Amino acid sequence: MLVSVIKIGGNVIDDKSKLSAFLKEFAALEGLKVLVHGGGKIATEIGEKLGIESKYVNGRRITDRVTLDLVTMVYGGLINKNIVAQLQSLGCNAIGLSGADAGILPAVKRPVKEVDYGFVGDIKSEQVNAAAIAKFLRMGLTPVLAPLTHDGAGNMLNTNADTIAQEVAKALAETMSVQLIYCFEKKGVLCDPADETSVINTITVGDLKELTEKEIVSGGMLPKLENALTAVRAGVQRVIIGQAEELQEIYSGNAGTSII
Amino acid sequence: MLVSVIKIGGNVIDDKSKLSAFLKEFAALEGLKVLVHGGGKIATEIGEKLGIESKYVNGRRITDRVTLDLVTMVYGGLINKNIVAQLQSLGCNAIGLSGADAGILPAVKRPVKEVDYGFVGDIKSEQVNAAAIAKFLRMGLTPVLAPLTHDGAGNMLNTNADTIAQEVAKALAETMSVQLIYCFEKKGVLCDPADETSVINTITVGDLKELTEKEIVSGGMLPKLENALTAVRAGVQRVIIGQAEELQEIYSGNAGTSII
Repeated sequence: MLVSVIKIGGNVIDDKSKLSAFLKEFAALEGLKVLVHGGGKIATEIGEKLGIESKYVNGRRITDRVTLDLVTMVYGGLINKNIVAQLQSLGCNAIGLSGADAGILPAVKRPVKEVDYGFVGDIKSEQVNAAAIAKFLRMGLTPVLAPLTHDGAGNMLNTNADTIAQEVAKALAETMSVQLIYCFEKKGVLCDPADETSVINTITVGDLKELTEKEIVSGGMLPKLENALTAVRAGVQRVIIGQAEELQEIYSGNAGTSII
Repeated sequence: MLVSVIKIGGNVIDDKSKLSAFLKEFAALEGLKVLVHGGGKIATEIGEKLGIESKYVNGRRITDRVTLDLVTMVYGGLINKNIVAQLQSLGCNAIGLSGADAGILPAVKRPVKEVDYGFVGDIKSEQVNAAAIAKFLRMGLTPVLAPLTHDGAGNMLNTNADTIAQEVAKALAETMSVQLIYCFEKKGVLCDPADETSVINTITVGDLKELTEKEIVSGGMLPKLENALTAVRAGVQRVIIGQAEELQEIYSGNAGTSII
């Protein structure tokens, strides 16, 4: 049985009509599935109203105690529960979970080196509770995961949604066939960034070096692809990177870039 | 197998050290259990900072759209996930749920009569998904329920935690033995409100009329007791009203007021 782990980010979450359209497509997908959502701009907006200053070091957000409370309520409450309620209305029996729920995502607070990122969690890969997620799937439930983990000592932690999708996919791959779908702004990895029709259909582990050397792949796409390759090396059948609007085509292998 | 549905309110939630002490006791209880938590003052405090005005009609809060978003994030995110993370640290495999998750608490938006309460949900008793809650319990999970339901049409709804505890207890009672524990400020129903040692041990369905006529029970206690009796009539084995600090004694039948 194939299970699909599908990740959406801010470009979908921040746009109500785009999110509704996506959830309709997602609900209609047959087969087992897990949705992982990021945070989007709404936490920053609510944070500003609450007088919580967004702090960044080297372009990365610092999660101090008040920011942790902010993301716990916005990611784990507002965004997660509204997605679940919408999926329920579409006939998809969703269950919203943070990494603390059923202990699915134990993490360790990132050690302080040059930068103190605050309450950011690095997932303990070997302790991901894939058995619980698999049980929920067998119950006919569709897990919807917020980008939050916990430290096992009573604290929630803030964790990147791309990483959560990768770790969950890897852990499920130990007992199931898994495909991991990253939805982002573009239709896939493009040969020519200016040409949306130049989607590369397939990238193998061997291709990446060449693509990087020829500078076809660069910038923000590089960590995404490395993330994808890590998942494939760990047993995930394929990773597909594509556009949220094309979810059904991606799902059936007719759109996006597959990393195998 | 006995399952205990235990409800805590603002007097525990708003006091960090009281909440920690309660969760320690709760985690230590043997047997199946479900925790239902109320909202407390924190939503009002965060709402004030966000410029959301609390509106009341006849002493009851009105849930407009912005208030719904506020309670969804505070109840379903901040409070719920922090309780779950703490229980996980105490060895209790908690799973935080709103009424939308796994479709456990379908509700209908309260019809507008003299007052428009806004996005407040009245639970559809016959549609409570007790089977899902029972499955979670059999998986070794401890459900932690936020005071939120959903309308099946994509909207979250705000619902009183006492009512959620009662509805869940009643629905579970169809297939299991259930006791329902309401934690509140006092040690139980008191014969003399000024004397904390005058706890009435047991109230039967027949006693209530007499207690009301003699004005021993009045004010805010009356709806609590009627709530309890409704649960008992619907098959809940016993309802106990007592103090959060005495959870273990209540649980073993040595404190609080039992309604049978």
